[in-house]
Amino acid sequence: MRSFNFNAGPAAMPLSVLETLQRDLVDYQGRGLSVLEMSHRSSDFIAIAQQAEADLRTLLAVPDEYSVLFMQGGATSQFALTVHNLDTNGRVAFANTGYWSDKASKIAALSTDTHEVVRTSREELVSVPPADHWLDPGDASYLHVTDNETIDGIRLGEFPDGPIPTVVDMSSSILSRPLAIERYGLIYAGAQKNIGPAGITVVLIRNALLERSAQREHLAPVFSYAAMNNAGSMLNTPPTFAWYAAGLVFQWLLEEGGLSVIANRNERQAESVYAAIDASEVFSNNVHPDNRSVMNIPFQVSRPEWEAGFLQGGAQRGLIGLKGHKSVGGLRASLYNAVTDKAVDALVDYLHEFARNPKA
Amino acid sequence: MRSFNFNAGPAAMPLSVLETLQRDLVDYQGRGLSVLEMSHRSSDFIAIAQQAEADLRTLLAVPDEYSVLFMQGGATSQFALTVHNLDTNGRVAFANTGYWSDKASKIAALSTDTHEVVRTSREELVSVPPADHWLDPGDASYLHVTDNETIDGIRLGEFPDGPIPTVVDMSSSILSRPLAIERYGLIYAGAQKNIGPAGITVVLIRNALLERSAQREHLAPVFSYAAMNNAGSMLNTPPTFAWYAAGLVFQWLLEEGGLSVIANRNERQAESVYAAIDASEVFSNNVHPDNRSVMNIPFQVSRPEWEAGFLQGGAQRGLIGLKGHKSVGGLRASLYNAVTDKAVDALVDYLHEFARNPKA
Repeated sequence: MRSFNFNAGPAAMPLSVLETLQRDLVDYQGRGLSVLEMSHRSSDFIAIAQQAEADLRTLLAVPDEYSVLFMQGGATSQFALTVHNLDTNGRVAFANTGYWSDKASKIAALSTDTHEVVRTSREELVSVPPADHWLDPGDASYLHVTDNETIDGIRLGEFPDGPIPTVVDMSSSILSRPLAIERYGLIYAGAQKNIGPAGITVVLIRNALLERSAQREHLAPVFSYAAMNNAGSMLNTPPTFAWYAAGLVFQWLLEEGGLSVIANRNERQAESVYAAIDASEVFSNNVHPDNRSVMNIPFQVSRPEWEAGFLQGGAQRGLIGLKGHKSVGGLRASLYNAVTDKAVDALVDYLHEFARNPKA
Repeated sequence: MRSFNFNAGPAAMPLSVLETLQRDLVDYQGRGLSVLEMSHRSSDFIAIAQQAEADLRTLLAVPDEYSVLFMQGGATSQFALTVHNLDTNGRVAFANTGYWSDKASKIAALSTDTHEVVRTSREELVSVPPADHWLDPGDASYLHVTDNETIDGIRLGEFPDGPIPTVVDMSSSILSRPLAIERYGLIYAGAQKNIGPAGITVVLIRNALLERSAQREHLAPVFSYAAMNNAGSMLNTPPTFAWYAAGLVFQWLLEEGGLSVIANRNERQAESVYAAIDASEVFSNNVHPDNRSVMNIPFQVSRPEWEAGFLQGGAQRGLIGLKGHKSVGGLRASLYNAVTDKAVDALVDYLHEFARNPKA
């Protein structure tokens, strides 16, 4: 039986994508070899790579003046590479909204001056101050924001569309809803949540920003957005299997009806889980409704000793990945695109059942 | 029918490994989820990761005073990261033996002074001057060498075991023969030749060198050997599927009898292909016998117009991946570990046949 997988990443993938990967694993469409054995320069792989980019552009309605890169290293590498490529003034502004934006800021601080324009308020309810309370980023090279805090369960919502470019970490929210791409200078996302396999990182960059990158004379080409773009993300051997799997996920999203359909499903699923949490004193989530994440729902049980009981009972019902991140503890349900209604229903039923009869 | 795959990388993988990947792709050993969907912090994945390292250590007899890292970004990233981590004197020595070592040297030159201690002689026969003709690397931070030049088809053979650490790119030769690990300060290898899937890079590093790395205050942890080692290569989400697939290749190598057995097979296969090339005026390989690569055999046809005919006739017999690298043209057969005797026999038969009756 297939588990109900609420992992925060690597995370659930669509079953039909896994079945396609399995079917073609030894022999890709009768070619006599696996995708894993194909040259990245072969016409078959070039077709896979180009289709993946085309489908991603369709899904997100990426404007022509943006380039799409497929890189390695995850968001954690991007914490450094965004600075190395785009910092022209020795100063970068950060919205410090949670664990990951704080981490991004600390990595940036290794090689530039960082300037915090807002910090999440952790009063009774956790909330991000409204945009008109943010500090002026001044002459910073860009403003870095984190669209969705995977660990804290915070959705950023609206934020200032200011005079300097916005660079956004969308690792845990990309493809969860339609986006106004043109509001961002650069979007990056590690793949292992809504895109699929760990080991590939999607970067969307406004072409005007490639200029900054091209001027970094001491930056190795493999770390340069401009050089990677010039090489069609094949400056060196790309992670071919991950790229192929990501492309299958993009196709699946199109078949499901695109991001408006997906966004509605995600909102509905998240609402039902928050409702189950809010319905009982046994569970709590302390994020302000305006900032509650649609993708990652951290929650607590009112007595610490019930936590292990909750996880164990969940596992018996096939519910896995519900442990909170080690940095904050507690519980967490991640509801990425591939998490089915059936899985969410099973979780909601279990939340109600445990609330009636909690045990250690 | 399965192709006879002579790709230079990504390249042929063992059929039994592909079949295991396929069998477990949707449901890993009855756990109800794919390896692709597993948290890298789960006990199942930790077991996979640890077994892979243990098997690699067994295969290569890695001494205890060496650490094993699994990184992202390929050898091309290592061209930069070796300098960022290990260059203490602002000076790095290079053996310029072919395309890839030249590239590594040029990337290093973006951020340090490079010093060439030897250059491949390209007289009638291509050869690497003997070790006692190399220049003294002086006070360079380390000497960088390329064990096997994938494009030029050059095996380095013996080289000085000098007073400064040797850093070696073994992307296209790692696991092809037993190694005296203790002769090297650091070994790196992109996986997409003898290790398996593109998207993961193995680094073996003498622990004493981690000290240098730890002192790089401005280096992002994800690019630091010391920080990656402290985190067990899980400083951020690793490329889990590629790590898992690499582990299956390590198991396969152990089952085959280990690297002595593999080395004998590789030598025998390469000899039979070189013999077929040398047997006819139609084909030529201009590398000195002492430096002929066991992994990658570039060769030429005596009339340029026969090249397309050779490739086309090969494809009709299921022989693929025989086109030379775009930088040098010509033909090339890569004979990595997973290339079977049957594939090599088919290539040798075809070489003889084409030599008797060459056509455009």
